[in-house]
Amino acid sequence: MGHLESITAPEHLRDLSSAELTELAAEIRDVLVATCARTGGHLGPNLGVVELTLAIHRTFASPRDRVVFDTGHQTYVHKLLTGRAAAFDSLRQEGGLSGYPSAAESPHDIVENSHASTALSYADGLAKAYALQGADRHVVAVIGDGALTGGMAWEALNNIAIAPNSRLVIVVNDNGRSYTPTIGGLATALTALRTSPRYENVLDLVKRRLTAVPGVGPAAYDALHAIKKGLKDAIAPQGLFEDLGLKYVGPVDGHDLEALEHALAQAKRFDGPVIVHALTNKGQGYDAALRHEADQFHAPGPFDVGTGVEKPKGRGWTDVFSEEVVRLGEQRPDLVGITAAMLHPVGLQAFAERFPDRTFDVGIAEQHAATSAAGLALAGMHPVVAVYATFLNRAFDQVLMDVALHRCGVTFVLDRSGVTGDDGASHNGMWDMSMLQLVPGLRLAAPRDATRLAELLAEAVDVDDAPTVVRYPKGPPPADIPAVEHVDGVDVLHRSASQDVLLVAVGAMATTAMDVAARLEAQGIGVTVVDPRWVIPVAPALIDLARDHRLVVSVEDNGRQGGCGASLLSALNDARVTTPVRVHGIPQEFLAHAKRAAILEQVGLDAQTLARACVEEMTALADHSRLLDVDRTG
Amino acid sequence: MGHLESITAPEHLRDLSSAELTELAAEIRDVLVATCARTGGHLGPNLGVVELTLAIHRTFASPRDRVVFDTGHQTYVHKLLTGRAAAFDSLRQEGGLSGYPSAAESPHDIVENSHASTALSYADGLAKAYALQGADRHVVAVIGDGALTGGMAWEALNNIAIAPNSRLVIVVNDNGRSYTPTIGGLATALTALRTSPRYENVLDLVKRRLTAVPGVGPAAYDALHAIKKGLKDAIAPQGLFEDLGLKYVGPVDGHDLEALEHALAQAKRFDGPVIVHALTNKGQGYDAALRHEADQFHAPGPFDVGTGVEKPKGRGWTDVFSEEVVRLGEQRPDLVGITAAMLHPVGLQAFAERFPDRTFDVGIAEQHAATSAAGLALAGMHPVVAVYATFLNRAFDQVLMDVALHRCGVTFVLDRSGVTGDDGASHNGMWDMSMLQLVPGLRLAAPRDATRLAELLAEAVDVDDAPTVVRYPKGPPPADIPAVEHVDGVDVLHRSASQDVLLVAVGAMATTAMDVAARLEAQGIGVTVVDPRWVIPVAPALIDLARDHRLVVSVEDNGRQGGCGASLLSALNDARVTTPVRVHGIPQEFLAHAKRAAILEQVGLDAQTLARACVEEMTALADHSRLLDVDRTG
Repeated sequence: MGHLESITAPEHLRDLSSAELTELAAEIRDVLVATCARTGGHLGPNLGVVELTLAIHRTFASPRDRVVFDTGHQTYVHKLLTGRAAAFDSLRQEGGLSGYPSAAESPHDIVENSHASTALSYADGLAKAYALQGADRHVVAVIGDGALTGGMAWEALNNIAIAPNSRLVIVVNDNGRSYTPTIGGLATALTALRTSPRYENVLDLVKRRLTAVPGVGPAAYDALHAIKKGLKDAIAPQGLFEDLGLKYVGPVDGHDLEALEHALAQAKRFDGPVIVHALTNKGQGYDAALRHEADQFHAPGPFDVGTGVEKPKGRGWTDVFSEEVVRLGEQRPDLVGITAAMLHPVGLQAFAERFPDRTFDVGIAEQHAATSAAGLALAGMHPVVAVYATFLNRAFDQVLMDVALHRCGVTFVLDRSGVTGDDGASHNGMWDMSMLQLVPGLRLAAPRDATRLAELLAEAVDVDDAPTVVRYPKGPPPADIPAVEHVDGVDVLHRSASQDVLLVAVGAMATTAMDVAARLEAQGIGVTVVDPRWVIPVAPALIDLARDHRLVVSVEDNGRQGGCGASLLSALNDARVTTPVRVHGIPQEFLAHAKRAAILEQVGLDAQTLARACVEEMTALADHSRLLDVDRTG
Repeated sequence: MGHLESITAPEHLRDLSSAELTELAAEIRDVLVATCARTGGHLGPNLGVVELTLAIHRTFASPRDRVVFDTGHQTYVHKLLTGRAAAFDSLRQEGGLSGYPSAAESPHDIVENSHASTALSYADGLAKAYALQGADRHVVAVIGDGALTGGMAWEALNNIAIAPNSRLVIVVNDNGRSYTPTIGGLATALTALRTSPRYENVLDLVKRRLTAVPGVGPAAYDALHAIKKGLKDAIAPQGLFEDLGLKYVGPVDGHDLEALEHALAQAKRFDGPVIVHALTNKGQGYDAALRHEADQFHAPGPFDVGTGVEKPKGRGWTDVFSEEVVRLGEQRPDLVGITAAMLHPVGLQAFAERFPDRTFDVGIAEQHAATSAAGLALAGMHPVVAVYATFLNRAFDQVLMDVALHRCGVTFVLDRSGVTGDDGASHNGMWDMSMLQLVPGLRLAAPRDATRLAELLAEAVDVDDAPTVVRYPKGPPPADIPAVEHVDGVDVLHRSASQDVLLVAVGAMATTAMDVAARLEAQGIGVTVVDPRWVIPVAPALIDLARDHRLVVSVEDNGRQGGCGASLLSALNDARVTTPVRVHGIPQEFLAHAKRAAILEQVGLDAQTLARACVEEMTALADHSRLLDVDRTG
């Protein structure tokens, strides 16, 4: 392997010469490309932070000094340098290395949450604690320019600025991009810093004075160079950060290891919070990534190393949404699209190309996405806010108070809902159908297949006085399942001759439910499979259906606590329906990373386990009613 | 009444002379003081915006132009000027005027949510919609410097800066305070703007040049004054806002009506988003408010107009917490206190005085409060984060991902939980016990009285590997209710001879439950009253207790959907306990303002209604079992 196999702890980096470090950087890039080509993963961001991560680990002493990475997908290099190079080929595989930091893997890892913009707040807390304890420990927070568009980062900067005793080094990893180029006033401010007029003006002044002196030769230009270097190095308040009272070093070339180490060493010596502004290129060192226009290979699936061509993925839920929202946009000029720095991943890029004026990318800012949508709705537009399901948690208060309280017609489209798997605990979209139950007036639809996604999206954008939500999982939709009957908005997908089990399938679990039904019928148990389509609030038709069956079984790809099954149980209880109810969903726990199918099986949401549970329940009920009969006749 | 009674719509303001406007301002202040002295209310903020509100309504044409107030408690003056002066004595009374904007009251009102920092996002949405529609409508957003510390405001500014077609005027109402002085880097930036060196430098330059010219007389000083005025008026990028690419007018004296109108007129003419920076004094024009050191009469209860002395409130839940957290702080040097701009209202000021180094006021920034607490916990401290219950909604994702996923020992103390009443829909703390059920590992305690608050707070800060929550309502705690028995952590408060009804009382509803029990016993129904103390997760002892009773009744001051009763129902269902369960809580709706007691009665959470429901249920059960008996013997 070269140098990498000898680096089993970050302190080993200190022994390497400059030439060896250059070799090591190349070696790391080879490993990143080769591994991600096989496993998929966040290649682009990690190619951009090779030198930055080396410089941090050569300047600071992790884990005594704490290195907090924002949006942990940029920690592959960190993993390679902290004793995990040998295990790196297990990246993102079940039982293998997580694609994010993991305290269970290493004492060098801290923040496992992969939601953006948290690092500065964590770092503020850590640094304040060490200051109180009088501990000689530095805290380094690495945050991208994209993550700085999130409100949490602002809240943190506002506080860090008045914590003079914090030994806190904020490394702004400025690659000009979130997934796609970073937007907004902040991007303007960072660009201003990159080409600081103050800095250039002073240089010009020095240059003019020097050239005004007759007979100035090369020595003067050496002096100029030294002055230039000195100015560039100075820790000085500057621009946006100056206004907040924060000290600043930079900008520094994020691929120049020596310059980076110089800047970080200065920042380390400074006795208080300081920002180091590093300019990096996402995808650096791999042509196929740099060439990738949409997002510089932000997170490709498996691909060919030579050509950079990804394995074809097939048509996914996202693609269905992408086409349908354009179609709806053609019909309705009041429809606007909103995304939080994820135009491509959520499938809004086609809408943006067709209706550029009606598309708003708000940055990594789900709160603003929701509330600006409320504003658009109050002025007569109908916004479609497309985000990953797990990220809507960031805007719970805004959905509740800003959208629902104001009866705004805003449609939230939740991609990657339910178990997503590979990206670990904080990417699973297992909270939405419980959290959103609390919002008065909100209606949520969970389509079971592509046809239903199109139907339900159209129904959702037709509601103009309340929030609506459409949620679907990652990956390809299953084959369409036609309804055999409609009962007051509820689709009946299957009916046996006898009405034993009412199987209520939420969204994409309908396919599994049909499989369960087949298994139960094979054992002589009659099953009615229904898809309520709109699962929040509970469909009244389910109450009557439940009354006519011997057992109600609900199946959802969402946390069991307070989800669709729990709400159905409550509704039946309120209606005095005493049919036994069994609720199947994801246990309310943080799930380790693995493939979606593997996790669903592990939590008992596969057809075999569900069918077995139904059979046992029916047997218990039969035993119970036999006992009752004995009791009655005895 | 003077001028006010003739102002039934804001356009009437245009006919008034300068002298009449001055009289009107004085009249408005008299009405504000007299009304709040009787009803209580947000006096200080409204005294500060009298001239500002007049200037806005004279410059813009509401409701065609939209005026969005952040944190709607600053809209009393707006209400007086938009046709509601005659009804103003009904302020904050049941059926009367809301203490916040209300679309039901007036077309001049837009945003009803009183959570801070939302106005800029709403305004961004409104202005973008009008730009798309080609409508000639301005949007004015009024936001305090305190609310600018919230992350949402940053997200909005970042977006507004790149919306050049938005006819959006942002009025920064800078009084240097949230409840208490605004903190953080932002405060530094605003101070810098107030005493802008650029502006002063230019003035100095002009002055020096003028004085260098011999024989300059008073005419030159007139010229200087004109230049000064010109400079002050100019729309120019400046400071923090310049960095983001936003245009800026100011600072302007927020109590000088002419200067305000001049600045607003300029801003209105500007074809794009612009910030008007107005300097105001909270409490302006009422000595007793200005003298009030803690918060300039932010929101007093009823008080004496002459002396400004509030009617005594008695010892509240907040006071109990205030004393206990200081006591715990003495014992545990690792305890730190965190508040989000509400040091006094949540009772942390005594802790702050005793342990200034261990207290952090993070601004109106609940997200940062939670995640910086996680950082402190990861470094070995135990943070106590004290906020109003409804505001924790802002940090759901942070509690879930940053605190719970990382198994951080952070204690959240939720004041004003349950029905708060007077402050309307968005102040009721009716979401916490449902939302927090979703968080793996989290434990929540609801003390029934002052003694239990002390006990449970101590237990909560002893948990160092998971988030804990202690929640209690507004007002005074009831008389202590001793336990007659303890069953595995559950307090039994009362036991009748026969075990008919198991009454599960959550927190402060224990007092009501004891009353219900007395009423049921009087009708020959046996009752066991229990207080689980820790209500999340469901106490296992409740399962066995439920099995031994004929009916389970839960009572909580929280939304019914997904709350403690719903979770108990689910837990009993999972355990195959078939005792009927009746869940009593707040219906999942937005509640109009009224007194707490009135609302509790209205939603059926008073002793009489609850007792009647229990009796009916027991009667139905008796009928049912009689039917069964008939069936068995027939």
